[in-house]
Amino acid sequence: MARRHVWTMTSVTVAAGVLTIALANAQPQLPPAENSDPVQLGLMQGFPPAPDRIVTLQNALKFPNNRWGWHNIRQLGPTAAVWRGRGGPSPLPAAPVELDRISFADESGTSTTIADWQKKTLTDAILVLHRGRVAYERYYVGMRPEEPHALWSATKSVTGLLATLLVHEGKIDRDAKVSTYLPELADTAWGDASVQQVMDMTTGVRYREAFAPSAETGTVLLYLFSNGLVPAPANYPGPRTMFKYLETLKKDGEHGKAFSYKSVDTEVLGWIVRRVSGKRMSELLSERIWSEIGAEEDAYVWVDQAGTEVTAIGLSATLRDLARFGEMLRLGGSINGKRVLPQAVVDEIRKGGDRDKFKAGDSTPPRTGYSFHNQWWIAHDPDGSFEAHGLNSQHIHINPAAELVVVKFSSHSSESRVTHALARRAYAALAAALRDRPR
Amino acid sequence: MARRHVWTMTSVTVAAGVLTIALANAQPQLPPAENSDPVQLGLMQGFPPAPDRIVTLQNALKFPNNRWGWHNIRQLGPTAAVWRGRGGPSPLPAAPVELDRISFADESGTSTTIADWQKKTLTDAILVLHRGRVAYERYYVGMRPEEPHALWSATKSVTGLLATLLVHEGKIDRDAKVSTYLPELADTAWGDASVQQVMDMTTGVRYREAFAPSAETGTVLLYLFSNGLVPAPANYPGPRTMFKYLETLKKDGEHGKAFSYKSVDTEVLGWIVRRVSGKRMSELLSERIWSEIGAEEDAYVWVDQAGTEVTAIGLSATLRDLARFGEMLRLGGSINGKRVLPQAVVDEIRKGGDRDKFKAGDSTPPRTGYSFHNQWWIAHDPDGSFEAHGLNSQHIHINPAAELVVVKFSSHSSESRVTHALARRAYAALAAALRDRPR
Repeated sequence: MARRHVWTMTSVTVAAGVLTIALANAQPQLPPAENSDPVQLGLMQGFPPAPDRIVTLQNALKFPNNRWGWHNIRQLGPTAAVWRGRGGPSPLPAAPVELDRISFADESGTSTTIADWQKKTLTDAILVLHRGRVAYERYYVGMRPEEPHALWSATKSVTGLLATLLVHEGKIDRDAKVSTYLPELADTAWGDASVQQVMDMTTGVRYREAFAPSAETGTVLLYLFSNGLVPAPANYPGPRTMFKYLETLKKDGEHGKAFSYKSVDTEVLGWIVRRVSGKRMSELLSERIWSEIGAEEDAYVWVDQAGTEVTAIGLSATLRDLARFGEMLRLGGSINGKRVLPQAVVDEIRKGGDRDKFKAGDSTPPRTGYSFHNQWWIAHDPDGSFEAHGLNSQHIHINPAAELVVVKFSSHSSESRVTHALARRAYAALAAALRDRPR
Repeated sequence: MARRHVWTMTSVTVAAGVLTIALANAQPQLPPAENSDPVQLGLMQGFPPAPDRIVTLQNALKFPNNRWGWHNIRQLGPTAAVWRGRGGPSPLPAAPVELDRISFADESGTSTTIADWQKKTLTDAILVLHRGRVAYERYYVGMRPEEPHALWSATKSVTGLLATLLVHEGKIDRDAKVSTYLPELADTAWGDASVQQVMDMTTGVRYREAFAPSAETGTVLLYLFSNGLVPAPANYPGPRTMFKYLETLKKDGEHGKAFSYKSVDTEVLGWIVRRVSGKRMSELLSERIWSEIGAEEDAYVWVDQAGTEVTAIGLSATLRDLARFGEMLRLGGSINGKRVLPQAVVDEIRKGGDRDKFKAGDSTPPRTGYSFHNQWWIAHDPDGSFEAHGLNSQHIHINPAAELVVVKFSSHSSESRVTHALARRAYAALAAALRDRPR
């Protein structure tokens, strides 16, 4: 521990390049969409690409490299397939609706449109599913429907769903201590945390999901070094696998008091899910969900140097398959008349978590009125919306009352705080435009 | 150039680990199949796997790590998908035949069986297709039908087929100089070589496909460092992308005189195919072949740090899809009544190359009577057999007269010289057992 912190705080020069790249993404403004199309820019185009147009793991976080990178992560490092199964794709019928010119007011009161919103938020692809039919589907940045796109932290909600399923099946006791399942973590922050606290991210861990290094809490870079999504400097002495990294983290404050967003909680949860099921996450996800919803394409998940899937931020999947996934959840666990999950599993997620603990927490962007439960963002709005969110505004928005699912991929250079409020308004506008349409 | 050679020859300590690993595979004996099952050994099993059971790119070449590694290469590094298309899998009907006890004589005259041969040669999976029906299909080492397996150098034949197709379409002039298409290589070994010489590997290049370093020819490790399939030492000063590496290679001897096996010729050919088609190899392979034969699963291909697919050794595909691929070639370019390639393309490959130039060359294992043409091994036997071969005996064996296709994956620790002669005898035994069966 000490040694790692010494390294983190004093060897800034070593990590300077990485930090610069990472922090370049923390500007609270969106860059203009113009001139960031990766195909027009020649990113990874040509044989070979121009030297300054090569996207690598070292520079992928830096805008506009992420415009190519987020739908091509497998080309940057090791991944495991999430097999779609042998059943063939389930139907996803089209019923197009003209939505581009739907207008709504942004936070400043200025009128904007669904088309402008997509451009402004550097959208890579978007699909609007209404009553199970594809009302609207667009791809940009050279993306194709069969190409998986990085979900980043929206991965957490998939992991949370699997965990909720195992709780429902009695395989995980949500009130048990983490160390019941993972004795490896007995002497860490999680030793006396409950599984439910991990699922709701109300644990107290000396860790903050921030790029800027702090002597108190380290930096999220150490987590990224441990899973390889950011290459560790050659002389980095810290853990280079996730499980080893988790074993270094200590308790900070009390468990169960307030929401505190952290990917490492999800990795602990993913570890429990594997330990209990005896299956790799990629295998379990394939068996229990991907093959069951009739996914059209394999998904994939980033793995660390020990072959451990990154269950907090590692999944990539296609727009259409995430639409099927969202639709299954909208319908309480069924799709096309086929039950995938017990209704109780979806109900458990939708009931949400403790809103006071959430308010006392550190949601960035601020998600007023939300709670975070079983790794899902619950809006507590009249429509019963619940959502999965990832870096650069990867979104799965499920609005049961409006019979609406929106999946949106983006690749911008600001944190989601700028785009979250706008997205909420856009989703409300889509719901308003679609909910009263005749059947 | 000089600097790289100095590094290679003097800094043995730096590369010693890598070399040891690589050379461990060059023993001319097969290890016993017993106790090498990766599941029983616990390779990459458990959460986390035991520290000495973790397979990484650093140790994957070392037996028995390759027993897990060769059907999980995407978990070790960057890959690009070869999409199977939207057509759904083409039929691959089963018509099982009991073949395990078919016996044949090995080179010493001792009787063996199809079952024993598979065990002895550390088979990962095998499929025998007779008259388009699956007569026999087995998976070992925990492999599943949907999992792609590394083809290693059998990749070359896929690249060669695409090149032959572009020659047929008039897009590549096989008599043109390489530098016509790749001015980048004007001052290299290939500047005055013809495309056909590259396709047949009769170029003279200061390069030998050998792990043991030589002051004259370097080592295949430099090629592997350039594409990342063997991690380059941190202080390695040489090229870390394949195209840059190709630009360093100089002429040695005359072009067109003798067969000289080398992956770098195939990489030059793959570069030409991209330059001419304007497409990535993964894209072209998907469009022209994988989607056309009705592949069941996506294949994938290893990419270097510039996103360049490794077209000599980088492809992984499933057993069944390679059976479809072989069947299409057996039938002269059609499968299930659908034409995929012009008959002339397959005829061009099957006619073979110059057998005298081949005999004057360096085939390892010795392939008596063969020639190498357009990146395919042509047996010149009465049945008209032609084959794709890869490291550790990855095989696609096509016997038109016996209406037979055999695809075999293996992961052993010797070079193919031990197993090639035995495989030829096994294929002959399979042909004899199947060819006269009533229709």
